[in-house]
Amino acid sequence: LTGQPLRIGVFDSGFGGLTVLRALLPRLPDAEFVYLGDTARLPYGSKSQATVARYAAEAANFLESRGAGYLVIACNTASALALDAIQSAVAVPVLGVIEAGAESADLASRTRNVLVLATDATVQSHAYARACGQRGLQTIEKACPLLVPLIEEGWIDHAVTRQVLAIYLEEAMQLARERECGIDTVLLGCTHYPLLRHVLRRMLPEEICILDSAETAAERAHRQLHALGMLSGVLPDAASSPPRDREEDALRCRFFATDSTEKFRVLGSRFLGQPIARVRHIDLGG
Amino acid sequence: LTGQPLRIGVFDSGFGGLTVLRALLPRLPDAEFVYLGDTARLPYGSKSQATVARYAAEAANFLESRGAGYLVIACNTASALALDAIQSAVAVPVLGVIEAGAESADLASRTRNVLVLATDATVQSHAYARACGQRGLQTIEKACPLLVPLIEEGWIDHAVTRQVLAIYLEEAMQLARERECGIDTVLLGCTHYPLLRHVLRRMLPEEICILDSAETAAERAHRQLHALGMLSGVLPDAASSPPRDREEDALRCRFFATDSTEKFRVLGSRFLGQPIARVRHIDLGG
Repeated sequence: LTGQPLRIGVFDSGFGGLTVLRALLPRLPDAEFVYLGDTARLPYGSKSQATVARYAAEAANFLESRGAGYLVIACNTASALALDAIQSAVAVPVLGVIEAGAESADLASRTRNVLVLATDATVQSHAYARACGQRGLQTIEKACPLLVPLIEEGWIDHAVTRQVLAIYLEEAMQLARERECGIDTVLLGCTHYPLLRHVLRRMLPEEICILDSAETAAERAHRQLHALGMLSGVLPDAASSPPRDREEDALRCRFFATDSTEKFRVLGSRFLGQPIARVRHIDLGG
Repeated sequence: LTGQPLRIGVFDSGFGGLTVLRALLPRLPDAEFVYLGDTARLPYGSKSQATVARYAAEAANFLESRGAGYLVIACNTASALALDAIQSAVAVPVLGVIEAGAESADLASRTRNVLVLATDATVQSHAYARACGQRGLQTIEKACPLLVPLIEEGWIDHAVTRQVLAIYLEEAMQLARERECGIDTVLLGCTHYPLLRHVLRRMLPEEICILDSAETAAERAHRQLHALGMLSGVLPDAASSPPRDREEDALRCRFFATDSTEKFRVLGSRFLGQPIARVRHIDLGG
């Protein structure tokens, strides 16, 4: 196969979706990426369905106009509230993180009882409960509105963060006991939360499986692109692929933000796990 | 004096400015109020100067178009980053909370050393340090990005909130010791923070004076309106005024929000200290 390389658009309200891009890079070594963070209008998690749908459709249009042939909606809130609106707004295939997460939970859970940790708006949409329910899973959804600010403060392995997590987990497990749900899988339903994965791992019993929506979205994107015939070669095995070249990764990515590019560069590097050299400003009219 | 009653526009990125409206109501018993919360684009505290200026100017134009003859910018971030932009955008007088806070600190502080607690963007703008510096005050500015999410979670007199406050205060006092500043005044430079006033009062030594920018802004608005001849009668003494009629207060206020009116009604009532019956939706094009 020759011609233009596949270009993938990744969208989030902010930096969190960079954890999804980070998971996509080793799986799709020949693709180019255009990332848009709608930082001037974040967070989406506290906004209404109508507002989120309008913002997300504008963002998807922008990514399509930059040549993206496939879109990953890395923002849980936008996937929960606006996937239909986005799919109507563009002509290319669109993947939302919610479906991807539910699919992985379906594969992981033996007890069929899953705990989803997410933002307020994602929980209130019950999008995870619906997507999991269609696969015969029982879901406890727990809103954790303080986790994003704690992560953005840089308080990762911090006493306050552990205390907040303990409170949220205890409230969720209390709910699970009331409903007689034997939780064996915790799904991190917000792209910021992978940064707390190691802290959570130490707080949860070993037999509980932790899934993060960044990894599960990247896996599903890879499978779906393969199924759509959009990948040029055989399905590479990420685990056995050669060590990545970070400089080459950087050349494959373009970053756009609707607010301060400098802040995006600095904070975003933490989520991407490598330096971001250049961010372009784009005005979506907000 | 007869004719139209004075109509005052109060602007904030969200609900926090309702603490300023709450402080204005008893001081201006004959005025009408139009409140705008730009909830679809909040929080301003993490956004760039250019973005905040554009949003705030649009909001000010809207309030002027609704008949406001005087504007109170209840949002610390907008006052810090965009007061000039707002004053250029409208024809009516504009009061920002920063100047009001600095004036009160000037009156309160004997040691001439003031600690300002505020959001990231307000601190980075150094607007309080400038306004206080012009009055001969030394200022320690401390960013407290977790306080707004904690207050919106409803964790007011809560172990986690006290622990976060203790960390922020210790970091600020450490800075003050290094600079040999004998702090005797703490200025709450964010309209959410008045809800933590009682918690802070118990954590700080008695000799430290706590000023909140809601009260100081309402006081200054009152004096300024009087000086401008915009009040119809003599300067009423708030302390000796008759008990307020909350239903009458409600009739004097109109509320607009750019995002969910229901969420504004429910959360906003907590900040206003009384129920909000009706909120209208307005689209500022964001």
